[in-house]
Amino acid sequence: MSIAASLENYFDRLWPICRSLTGDGVRESLKILQEIIPLEIHEVPSGSQAFDWVVPNEWNIRDAYIVTPQGKKIAAFAENNLHVVSYSIPVDQEMTWDELQPHIHTRPDLPEAIPYVTSYYKENWGFCITHQEYETLPREGKYRVVIDSSLAPGSLTYGDLILQGETNEEILCSTYVCHPSMANNELSGPLVTAFLYQYLAALPKRRYTYRFVFVPETIGAIVYLNRHGFYLKENLRAGYVLTCVGDAGAYTYKHSKDDSLPVNQVALHVLETSGEAYSHFPFEVGGSDERQYCSPGFNLPVGSLMRTMYHKFPQYHTSLDNKSVVSFAAMEETVLMYAKIFKALELNQCYRNTCPFGEPQLGKRGLYHSIGGLPIPPQRILQRLHLLSYADGKTDLFTIARKRGESILQYEDVVEELSAAGLLVID
Amino acid sequence: MSIAASLENYFDRLWPICRSLTGDGVRESLKILQEIIPLEIHEVPSGSQAFDWVVPNEWNIRDAYIVTPQGKKIAAFAENNLHVVSYSIPVDQEMTWDELQPHIHTRPDLPEAIPYVTSYYKENWGFCITHQEYETLPREGKYRVVIDSSLAPGSLTYGDLILQGETNEEILCSTYVCHPSMANNELSGPLVTAFLYQYLAALPKRRYTYRFVFVPETIGAIVYLNRHGFYLKENLRAGYVLTCVGDAGAYTYKHSKDDSLPVNQVALHVLETSGEAYSHFPFEVGGSDERQYCSPGFNLPVGSLMRTMYHKFPQYHTSLDNKSVVSFAAMEETVLMYAKIFKALELNQCYRNTCPFGEPQLGKRGLYHSIGGLPIPPQRILQRLHLLSYADGKTDLFTIARKRGESILQYEDVVEELSAAGLLVID
Amino acid sequence: MSIAASLENYFDRLWPICRSLTGDGVRESLKILQEIIPLEIHEVPSGSQAFDWVVPNEWNIRDAYIVTPQGKKIAAFAENNLHVVSYSIPVDQEMTWDELQPHIHTRPDLPEAIPYVTSYYKENWGFCITHQEYETLPREGKYRVVIDSSLAPGSLTYGDLILQGETNEEILCSTYVCHPSMANNELSGPLVTAFLYQYLAALPKRRYTYRFVFVPETIGAIVYLNRHGFYLKENLRAGYVLTCVGDAGAYTYKHSKDDSLPVNQVALHVLETSGEAYSHFPFEVGGSDERQYCSPGFNLPVGSLMRTMYHKFPQYHTSLDNKSVVSFAAMEETVLMYAKIFKALELNQCYRNTCPFGEPQLGKRGLYHSIGGLPIPPQRILQRLHLLSYADGKTDLFTIARKRGESILQYEDVVEELSAAGLLVID
Repeated sequence: MSIAASLENYFDRLWPICRSLTGDGVRESLKILQEIIPLEIHEVPSGSQAFDWVVPNEWNIRDAYIVTPQGKKIAAFAENNLHVVSYSIPVDQEMTWDELQPHIHTRPDLPEAIPYVTSYYKENWGFCITHQEYETLPREGKYRVVIDSSLAPGSLTYGDLILQGETNEEILCSTYVCHPSMANNELSGPLVTAFLYQYLAALPKRRYTYRFVFVPETIGAIVYLNRHGFYLKENLRAGYVLTCVGDAGAYTYKHSKDDSLPVNQVALHVLETSGEAYSHFPFEVGGSDERQYCSPGFNLPVGSLMRTMYHKFPQYHTSLDNKSVVSFAAMEETVLMYAKIFKALELNQCYRNTCPFGEPQLGKRGLYHSIGGLPIPPQRILQRLHLLSYADGKTDLFTIARKRGESILQYEDVVEELSAAGLLVID
Repeated sequence: MSIAASLENYFDRLWPICRSLTGDGVRESLKILQEIIPLEIHEVPSGSQAFDWVVPNEWNIRDAYIVTPQGKKIAAFAENNLHVVSYSIPVDQEMTWDELQPHIHTRPDLPEAIPYVTSYYKENWGFCITHQEYETLPREGKYRVVIDSSLAPGSLTYGDLILQGETNEEILCSTYVCHPSMANNELSGPLVTAFLYQYLAALPKRRYTYRFVFVPETIGAIVYLNRHGFYLKENLRAGYVLTCVGDAGAYTYKHSKDDSLPVNQVALHVLETSGEAYSHFPFEVGGSDERQYCSPGFNLPVGSLMRTMYHKFPQYHTSLDNKSVVSFAAMEETVLMYAKIFKALELNQCYRNTCPFGEPQLGKRGLYHSIGGLPIPPQRILQRLHLLSYADGKTDLFTIARKRGESILQYEDVVEELSAAGLLVID
Repeated sequence: MSIAASLENYFDRLWPICRSLTGDGVRESLKILQEIIPLEIHEVPSGSQAFDWVVPNEWNIRDAYIVTPQGKKIAAFAENNLHVVSYSIPVDQEMTWDELQPHIHTRPDLPEAIPYVTSYYKENWGFCITHQEYETLPREGKYRVVIDSSLAPGSLTYGDLILQGETNEEILCSTYVCHPSMANNELSGPLVTAFLYQYLAALPKRRYTYRFVFVPETIGAIVYLNRHGFYLKENLRAGYVLTCVGDAGAYTYKHSKDDSLPVNQVALHVLETSGEAYSHFPFEVGGSDERQYCSPGFNLPVGSLMRTMYHKFPQYHTSLDNKSVVSFAAMEETVLMYAKIFKALELNQCYRNTCPFGEPQLGKRGLYHSIGGLPIPPQRILQRLHLLSYADGKTDLFTIARKRGESILQYEDVVEELSAAGLLVID
């Protein structure tokens, strides 16, 4: 089966599950993802402290609906899990329209969409319906409202995996698993991340160690940082939040805070030299878990390579963000683009020329042409001399490649042959 | 009485006084200004050393005129104090045109103007007349020349005032009081400075301590630096020379030497976001007392916010720089623009987020919306998160505000509510 | 005799000599150049180690030619020393066209040119002929091939000279002497360098010490660095490789690695303010001995000011690079342009104002106008104040001059008069 087909297969299995910050929906989703990436699963008890936050009670839901005064069952959870506000407390009650109305959420600007609404940290309940349906509901008579949920001590569930490389320097891939049935945001994130793992695990060697993190957004990332943040502060070389990576739109890259770091510059360089359309923008505080990774206490080098990003596609955070929005071929391309960036990051070392006084004599090593004086030396020889000339142990390869207007990926073989000749080392 | 009306009132009283580097004109002027700002007055004896300079003798003048061969009295000091070269030694003598002529100064390019001329450090005497009058004077016959002045040991007079704030970090407002009857340069300077004091003194709190300095130009500033320069080097955060602040022309800002400092960047930012017309230019050595404040031994952060600056209005340094050139409404606006810059400088601290690991949970402090998932969070919440995310104790607020394309003044309330919640401190 | 005429005279004497990496041609050339510049001559034995390199055997040649099957003598060394591949081993042999052909070099793109070819480090032999002649050679019959050369232990010859200045801080002029009869590349290099010495030696004083180096390219520079590189690393302030300085084309400046250094910025500034046409480009690894001087172990501040540079004129490295390509008047101008750059580099010190607290009182030193208040002070006075204001002992004159949009050369007199007054020193 092609990667795209396999992506679609898993998409279809994960789609109907009702995920939230906590609960069995997350557990079930991670279990399916373990078929692709052998995640270790962690359960963090409700009430656990993580910096300024406390892990909330666990939420589970079995059923929910409203019965109209005419006896029509609407907003049925069984039909679409977006109908219930995430973290709604249990209700089973008759009430008037005026009592019900404050608990109904719609999107008047998108009258056919069921909005996605949550109330994690304030006990509340609610229903989300299309604005079209809302307009038809009678303002008189008694409604019956049922939410068969539980909000009680339990645990928050997340998964992670370390793919060891030659060094302990790390690259982080973080994605989230707390949204009910929506496609680009969020199902594309865990799917692309899982298949990216498969690609990297199959490589004959990796310089860096890769860390994969599947958490509920915000609280999950904060819990994760509470456990691993100070280690990452020492060891992380680059990280990316994978979200909105499912459609066929142009790439969008969001920088980490320090624009000049390799996490950003190398990603942009690979995008630039790939010929693909892309745009990019500096860090801003609206967004996903890079908000946590880049918080001032950690300020990790974490950016985010997306396709069409949150807030920029009209279906965002509604029932319209469904399978029709995403492309499995595009998801596969996104996996490969991430892999290319990782390759470039691995190449991007500060090499040191071991023969730094004058040029090394390449001729005696078979790395030079023996006849001199001819008009223009071959490009490969110029690349060797260029790299040796700038390889002072302090300048990264990305900077060196750009001086000749070349892609860092064009230096893979040059690095290898000069290293093999003992002329190039990494300190 | 409105501020503008009060400014005009004081202008009219100060106008006729003959000020110079030293002498009773300065004393009388400072006494009038004390009605607005309670300056402390200092007398520095002639012969006092100040770095490379020596305080010159004190100059006073009672009368001066020329009687032409036809017996006509011209160049009468009683009519316009610009007629006498400042610091002219006493003369009472008959002489030919050829003897007199080297002592006559005119402006052929402005034939109706009496120029402003000084000879502080070389004993000399002279008269300034309009070029029109000069052309009519007979070249034959005897002239009588009278200057009833004294140049003798005495003292140099200046005034200053400290308006204490919450910290000892200082902002300096420096202006000069050594010019005879001219309006934009110089009377606008001391007037705007004095009323700026009144505005600041009336504020409920000030973070910074404000220092007001009224000195004769150059020698006065050098004397002042001799006494206070090393203290200012430690404590001055920003300073401005107030000169040419009296007309209704566009603002002109002259940078201190290091363009990147808040003294310049915050001033420019406030001008930019004020919507007022302005121009600006880097430090240059022609100018007023910023020449001294920015000398390499001190290199203080001192710029100058002006309206139409010296050399740029044709009436500059002549009798044509009179009341018709200035606008008291514009002077009042200038007071308010300086006050706005000072507010912005006070806000421009390096705040530190006390909860820097992940985002603080704003919800439990009533600083977040409780319903999640809706399309775009309110701007105020984004401002809070933005400030907290960048508040690393090393980045100033100005830099943080600009990242969102906002004015620093838009963050006054955000700073206050986050500080009140204990989330923001200044170290 | 004018400099241009003298240049031509020496050109004509040096032209016919067959120079190579080593051998009597180099010795003979240096001996002639000693008439202009009293070089010290050094002989480095074959087999000497210099970093990654070994000095090769010495090569000398007496005669070489090919006799065609029809008995015609072609490719005669006696007619043009480019006919023999430099460092060809001795041959005296009959052979077929198929045996001979791999040893024949032509330039099909320049059919009338004899190319310049070398084989220094791989034992080989060969002939260079025009492509026109190549086309006429019969493919049948026996050729006789004669190269009467020797390749045997001997030595590598180079010359250098130190022209002592007031300080031991150095400026390097490096050129090469290993090419057979070609004009712009290379004879213009040693000629301009030698006459530049004459110009500098005649100056009444020089702040810097000037080092002149005449070496065979690459191996000669590496040998030189092996002996003097670590001393230069401490003492070199700026250096230039003189090559392709013989034609009347626009100037071309190649930067050393760190673009911001005076070696580059001052050279570009002098070019810019000279009004001459020029272009410039950052360091790149193709080129001449700056490859060695800028190698990462030394990274010396060495650029190259050329006229029409290597690879950019079609005659480059062929017999067409002859006297018709160069201009002796242009060579003389190049000498003067280099001298101007050196003057600017000498002026470009970090001066310190000895009177840094407020302005020094220039009036008492006769450096100020005594009458004040006049519209615009004289430019010379502003230059004095400007230099004193920025002379903090850390900012170089070049940076200071540019702040007023002026040439550093316009400050020669200002520096002198302020230094004479004791107001300016170099620490």
